[in-house]
Amino acid sequence: MIEYNYRKLLANKYIPKAIEADKLDAYADKVAEADNDIALDRQANILGFYGLPEYDTSRIKYFIQKLPEKFDTMVVLGIGGSALGNKALYNALKTERELKKRLFVYDNVDPVFLHEILSAIDLERTIFNVITKSGTTAETMAGYMILMDILKRKFPEDYRQRMIITTDREKGFLRQVIQKEAYESFIVPDNVGGRFSVLTDVGLVSSAFVGMDIDALLLGAGQMRQRCSGLDLKENPAYMNGLLHYLYMREGKNISVMMPYSNSLYDFADWYRQLWAESLGKRYDRKNRQIYVGQTPVKALGTTDQHSQVQLYTEGPNDKVFTLMQVQRFQHDYQIPNLHPEREEVSYLGGKMLSELLNAECFATEIALTKAGRPSCMISLPEISERYLGQAIMMYEIQTVFTGKLLNINPLDQPGVEAGKIATYALMGKQGFDKEREEIETFKKL
Amino acid sequence: MIEYNYRKLLANKYIPKAIEADKLDAYADKVAEADNDIALDRQANILGFYGLPEYDTSRIKYFIQKLPEKFDTMVVLGIGGSALGNKALYNALKTERELKKRLFVYDNVDPVFLHEILSAIDLERTIFNVITKSGTTAETMAGYMILMDILKRKFPEDYRQRMIITTDREKGFLRQVIQKEAYESFIVPDNVGGRFSVLTDVGLVSSAFVGMDIDALLLGAGQMRQRCSGLDLKENPAYMNGLLHYLYMREGKNISVMMPYSNSLYDFADWYRQLWAESLGKRYDRKNRQIYVGQTPVKALGTTDQHSQVQLYTEGPNDKVFTLMQVQRFQHDYQIPNLHPEREEVSYLGGKMLSELLNAECFATEIALTKAGRPSCMISLPEISERYLGQAIMMYEIQTVFTGKLLNINPLDQPGVEAGKIATYALMGKQGFDKEREEIETFKKL
Repeated sequence: MIEYNYRKLLANKYIPKAIEADKLDAYADKVAEADNDIALDRQANILGFYGLPEYDTSRIKYFIQKLPEKFDTMVVLGIGGSALGNKALYNALKTERELKKRLFVYDNVDPVFLHEILSAIDLERTIFNVITKSGTTAETMAGYMILMDILKRKFPEDYRQRMIITTDREKGFLRQVIQKEAYESFIVPDNVGGRFSVLTDVGLVSSAFVGMDIDALLLGAGQMRQRCSGLDLKENPAYMNGLLHYLYMREGKNISVMMPYSNSLYDFADWYRQLWAESLGKRYDRKNRQIYVGQTPVKALGTTDQHSQVQLYTEGPNDKVFTLMQVQRFQHDYQIPNLHPEREEVSYLGGKMLSELLNAECFATEIALTKAGRPSCMISLPEISERYLGQAIMMYEIQTVFTGKLLNINPLDQPGVEAGKIATYALMGKQGFDKEREEIETFKKL
Repeated sequence: MIEYNYRKLLANKYIPKAIEADKLDAYADKVAEADNDIALDRQANILGFYGLPEYDTSRIKYFIQKLPEKFDTMVVLGIGGSALGNKALYNALKTERELKKRLFVYDNVDPVFLHEILSAIDLERTIFNVITKSGTTAETMAGYMILMDILKRKFPEDYRQRMIITTDREKGFLRQVIQKEAYESFIVPDNVGGRFSVLTDVGLVSSAFVGMDIDALLLGAGQMRQRCSGLDLKENPAYMNGLLHYLYMREGKNISVMMPYSNSLYDFADWYRQLWAESLGKRYDRKNRQIYVGQTPVKALGTTDQHSQVQLYTEGPNDKVFTLMQVQRFQHDYQIPNLHPEREEVSYLGGKMLSELLNAECFATEIALTKAGRPSCMISLPEISERYLGQAIMMYEIQTVFTGKLLNINPLDQPGVEAGKIATYALMGKQGFDKEREEIETFKKL
């Protein structure tokens, strides 16, 4: 099991003003209420991610198994929840496991980025996977039209075997395209929001393609769901971490830094960044006043950002809650040779493993943060594997929904994204947006 | 010249409470005082980055020119200011310019990351560049000892031609190694702090190696220095942006988001992240009270993060100042074919260039932020080139020092990094840290 250590989030001699352990009982009712809200949502079938450990992956595995061997590369076209989980899993395991197949995720409309991907792949050996529930996401559809056009020109005979589409089960324009052209397809389920969907077809197809054990991902997720099923906070890392973050948020700590000591886990922090920001960053009315809640997630990388951010983290405003992540065992490791045994500047490193230095620095940062009065918790993975990644994913998904309940907001919507979409439609000349185009003209004169 | 548009940082009908344009005159004295402080620092020769546009690059160019042709890859070993600028420049131009030589920057002690780099390079064709002013940076020295050992074993005859060392001109252990083993060497100057050093040998050697026009970088920097030399804020983007950020900081906006609409510029935002965080995140005493200042820089990517962070940015707490960056012309671009002319969901995209969609979304985000009452500015690069990157670097370096002066803190030190270094020494068993080791034992029991 991954370990979760919250002791440095609680009051101690260095952080006397922090939350005291024996004060947590006072929130038992609030915790029970949030837990009950979640149970009701699960009954109403709007928190489908809870059920994913039981998801039947046989169709995915069958599809991957019968895929022509020539395909050694997959390019996912997706953005946000249709991209971040895929990247997090692939980058966590690609080097650790020396995965033989490659994954690219084109999650932007940057032409230079597209050029980079097209230069890096062999089209003949590449299968594309378009992922969008609605089939209207501008970024994904732009990429789809460019790449489908390339495929049709280059492979007029069999372009249909070179693209798969992951979209709504029934609705939407892409489902019609699938039916008309007989593309292989997968499903973005109704009851799992985009940012919670990494353990559906959205994230599992690309993960299975590159050679991951997707059943182990689900197994891990199930283990964590089990661990987070009770009201005893000490035994429930998702609820404990959610409650503590909620309490710090109320105290004005508006930044949550996730700092893995592992390059492989940096994109996991990016996945968390969407989950936490989009779920909890919300506006609502109370007594004719607008209330804005949320906590800005920041990804940082140990040790790298010790030489970039730790000055601010320890001596700047005390406005952050920190999550350090460490890995206990790596598949690859290197011993530091004692190249200059006579020089005390470096001889202390001689003979040590690189991972030992990495984890010592993680502990050192925990000490430095605590001594500076900054609250932090530690997530420790025994190793980087599907099972532990599945556990971490489920923990954070539950924690996010739970924290949303504590905040009395809806953690599943994202109404604030609409304004930008509408402005884009207007700017790109889409029909029906004349009024918005006029407004933009006045905006230009501001 | 790069364009800097600050109009959306000022009060307008959507952000009535923002800073009003005609109130800026009230800060003329404060601006003049900060400017005078900078002039004194320049006379005292502690702001050497101002003089870098005149830096003589002939030695670097000569070195690159006489380097054996077989070297097609450079691996920089450095961290923080000895890594972030190198990455920012390389990733800005590598695809745009289709650079033929490769750069890797090993800026961590993660063994998996090292394994990844070693798997990707051909040692025979790789030259290493160790960058550390003191020669004691644990992370860099660990990498240096591992890789030097590998080179000595594999190339006992000519390993000295496969590593260059960039360090202090005279002092430090590595300078002695250079003298003893006759490595080619470059200089980290005394009067340019690490995070301001990208336009010294630190950043220029790797940039020249991969084929950049380093004189154009310095030319651009000189142009911006000239533009930022007067007290008229409207003509001085560094001072205007610094003052406005300072005023927002005082109002409690403790987060500065930099969001380039270009994957190539994402690492420029990471470079900015160190500059802004480490320079301004400071603690000082005032009347026996500890004061903590600083603003947490956050890197975001357009359009990608519209589907991850913009919900929070528009509806979460109004605690941020935004900097959007856009590129007017890309070397590579793609037209979106009108694949489904009958479907209004996507037909509006047909015939448009990808860059047009990208920049429309950038503008749409500016509109969405403004309508949500969130202040933002826009930096616009005519194209991604050495000259414009040099301009952007100099603008932000001047802005950072200027803002430090406004805050009455020293933007050039980083005392908060020491605690973690000392804890690492203690944990790794370095001599002379017994007391700290004892303290850590009590820490473990917290």
